[in-house]
Amino acid sequence: MSLTVIALNCTLKRGDEDSSTDKLLQEALIEFQKLGIEGDLVRIANLDIKPGVTSDEGDGDEWPQLLERILASDILLLGTPVWLGQPSSVAKRVVERMDAFFGEMDRNNRMPSYGKVAAIAVVGNEDGAHHCHAELFQALNDVGFTLAPGAGTYWVGEAMGSIDYKDLTVPVKKTRETTAILAANAAHLATLLKASTYPGVRSKPS
Amino acid sequence: MSLTVIALNCTLKRGDEDSSTDKLLQEALIEFQKLGIEGDLVRIANLDIKPGVTSDEGDGDEWPQLLERILASDILLLGTPVWLGQPSSVAKRVVERMDAFFGEMDRNNRMPSYGKVAAIAVVGNEDGAHHCHAELFQALNDVGFTLAPGAGTYWVGEAMGSIDYKDLTVPVKKTRETTAILAANAAHLATLLKASTYPGVRSKPS
Amino acid sequence: MSLTVIALNCTLKRGDEDSSTDKLLQEALIEFQKLGIEGDLVRIANLDIKPGVTSDEGDGDEWPQLLERILASDILLLGTPVWLGQPSSVAKRVVERMDAFFGEMDRNNRMPSYGKVAAIAVVGNEDGAHHCHAELFQALNDVGFTLAPGAGTYWVGEAMGSIDYKDLTVPVKKTRETTAILAANAAHLATLLKASTYPGVRSKPS
Amino acid sequence: MSLTVIALNCTLKRGDEDSSTDKLLQEALIEFQKLGIEGDLVRIANLDIKPGVTSDEGDGDEWPQLLERILASDILLLGTPVWLGQPSSVAKRVVERMDAFFGEMDRNNRMPSYGKVAAIAVVGNEDGAHHCHAELFQALNDVGFTLAPGAGTYWVGEAMGSIDYKDLTVPVKKTRETTAILAANAAHLATLLKASTYPGVRSKPS
Repeated sequence: MSLTVIALNCTLKRGDEDSSTDKLLQEALIEFQKLGIEGDLVRIANLDIKPGVTSDEGDGDEWPQLLERILASDILLLGTPVWLGQPSSVAKRVVERMDAFFGEMDRNNRMPSYGKVAAIAVVGNEDGAHHCHAELFQALNDVGFTLAPGAGTYWVGEAMGSIDYKDLTVPVKKTRETTAILAANAAHLATLLKASTYPGVRSKPS
Repeated sequence: MSLTVIALNCTLKRGDEDSSTDKLLQEALIEFQKLGIEGDLVRIANLDIKPGVTSDEGDGDEWPQLLERILASDILLLGTPVWLGQPSSVAKRVVERMDAFFGEMDRNNRMPSYGKVAAIAVVGNEDGAHHCHAELFQALNDVGFTLAPGAGTYWVGEAMGSIDYKDLTVPVKKTRETTAILAANAAHLATLLKASTYPGVRSKPS
Repeated sequence: MSLTVIALNCTLKRGDEDSSTDKLLQEALIEFQKLGIEGDLVRIANLDIKPGVTSDEGDGDEWPQLLERILASDILLLGTPVWLGQPSSVAKRVVERMDAFFGEMDRNNRMPSYGKVAAIAVVGNEDGAHHCHAELFQALNDVGFTLAPGAGTYWVGEAMGSIDYKDLTVPVKKTRETTAILAANAAHLATLLKASTYPGVRSKPS
Repeated sequence: MSLTVIALNCTLKRGDEDSSTDKLLQEALIEFQKLGIEGDLVRIANLDIKPGVTSDEGDGDEWPQLLERILASDILLLGTPVWLGQPSSVAKRVVERMDAFFGEMDRNNRMPSYGKVAAIAVVGNEDGAHHCHAELFQALNDVGFTLAPGAGTYWVGEAMGSIDYKDLTVPVKKTRETTAILAANAAHLATLLKASTYPGVRSKPS
């Protein structure tokens, strides 16, 4: 049974500008690959993801195609930079669009995301990773994803620092280990859930 | 000495679609008007605010003109709907752009926002207002705004509710009172600061 | 294979004073019982849980016995009231004590909580549930728990409300359904993990 | 017109055990002293602050005396360590007790904290300061305190770090500057508010 992972880079940088979030996501994809899990990486700022809470906001909205790819993957790896100690507006936009899942449950109250595992990668010059984890864990759990232990990896520098992760020349051992644990736990959980997903709960007639 | 307020509606809805956030912001502007403070209301989703952390991201970016209006006002009133218990991606985009203030301090380490007062209005079908306040208080305080007591007003319905504030036909007394207090405190503080702004701290030569 | 759940009531109320959090936890335990999962309920404010981040702070600390019961259970259900839009200081104390798990990993970097499922129940007069979920999801995920979809149930009243959940005489249908889904998902996940826990990742010699 | 500041150290450490939070608070008190503002420092974990949301929980509760000292000061400086990316349970207890202010408003809807300025100092081995600011800004603003720009100072180390602020032998320039700005802004604002506090809003007869 083979698994797949989709990594979403929620940097504010468009085009192919160097991105620290990209670097951490690439490292994570390598860890997943070691476990036999193939992955793709998408830079969200290069797509036109409209504001809204439906699964298709029309008018050139590129969310529907992205959503299809997310739902075709077993693991969602959401990567965000830290700005003002918080996830980026781009990351916020992505989870906001999944609010639509509340209206897309099957007869057993299961969202399209049921049985899928989510994980988070956060990068910043300084401070904010745990809070980005909290915001995104809650949002993604609300919309039906499952979270393995240590579902967040990260690198941030010392308080008020200005070094970019992408400019570090030496690998950060602790971040590497945390990423490896994230991948191993997510892979194990996704394997279990792919073999046996949640049965859900049938709504009672009201 | 006359004051002005600018209200930013961070709804996800574009055009002139009915917005609950709009309703609460209009109510707040009436409270400010009672105190002799004139205001404007801008719907952010109708502007092209580019992702980024500089004050001009070029390429049709409409942030520069908006920023000019914000900096010409004494009070910033940021209004956001609640999605997944959190501020909208549009609200997040607005505060993210003000990260640029860190690079725009004067010789006394004062950001362009120094001496200005911020307040928050939050509307949702259910749950999430306090957290929206927390996120936006911290972000706006980080970028130099001052917060009077009770700097957040809000309406949200009961847990898992689905009623919209805009569809309530009877005024919500507690929200009205909270909004009136917000306006009175913000007005008092903005008056004090307009007469005597922060002196700042001169950086020592390093 | 039988499972057990331990419910921790993090109300600020001591003794056996009526507690809204207790009511929601009792409702959740009934849902678990319907699935064949037996549970216990502990009111934390009646224990002397010392501040600290070790597993035994000595001096009458009642955490060690509580921890033993938590680790003997398959599912941890943490219940907190909302104060100022945030989890109670008692809930915060409980998760804080589990920070000790970072120093108690086995050779495969697994914390004592690995393979266990956590869920959250939140009750307040008004607003704050999603944020309590976020804070506690992140804290419990950091210390090794797994989170099934919809890992948070809750009831809160309308903005600035003052009705207590314990005083509602009619069952809240949506909260009941959410609690039933929480129990079903947690039970399914705990069953999978009990049969096949995380293998962990062996640390490389440095 | 002379001002006073009270610094509350919300470390988990009791007695006079070395505390990094203490070090940052002492540095802040020195900055306040340079501005002619005298201060006191209290270690909360050495007091018996009962759980609850009234201003006197009886039974040996030491909150009433502490509250008296807080209300006799012009500036409240709350210091917390970071645990699991969040404020300590001790800090949470302190703000929770001020929930009582909602029931202690004067005829003009002013809480006992009106006209007082709050500021936050956060210390951790790594990551979490901005979120501690957010949680405490919101809680303290809700209960009536005013926040000057840059109301939070902090030091945290690099991601997953383990160095303690108290063990750093060289002063951290950026934290020092941030603390100096915090003190200058808080002092300016407290001076303005002491001369001219909020008038409040008279409740209309219902």
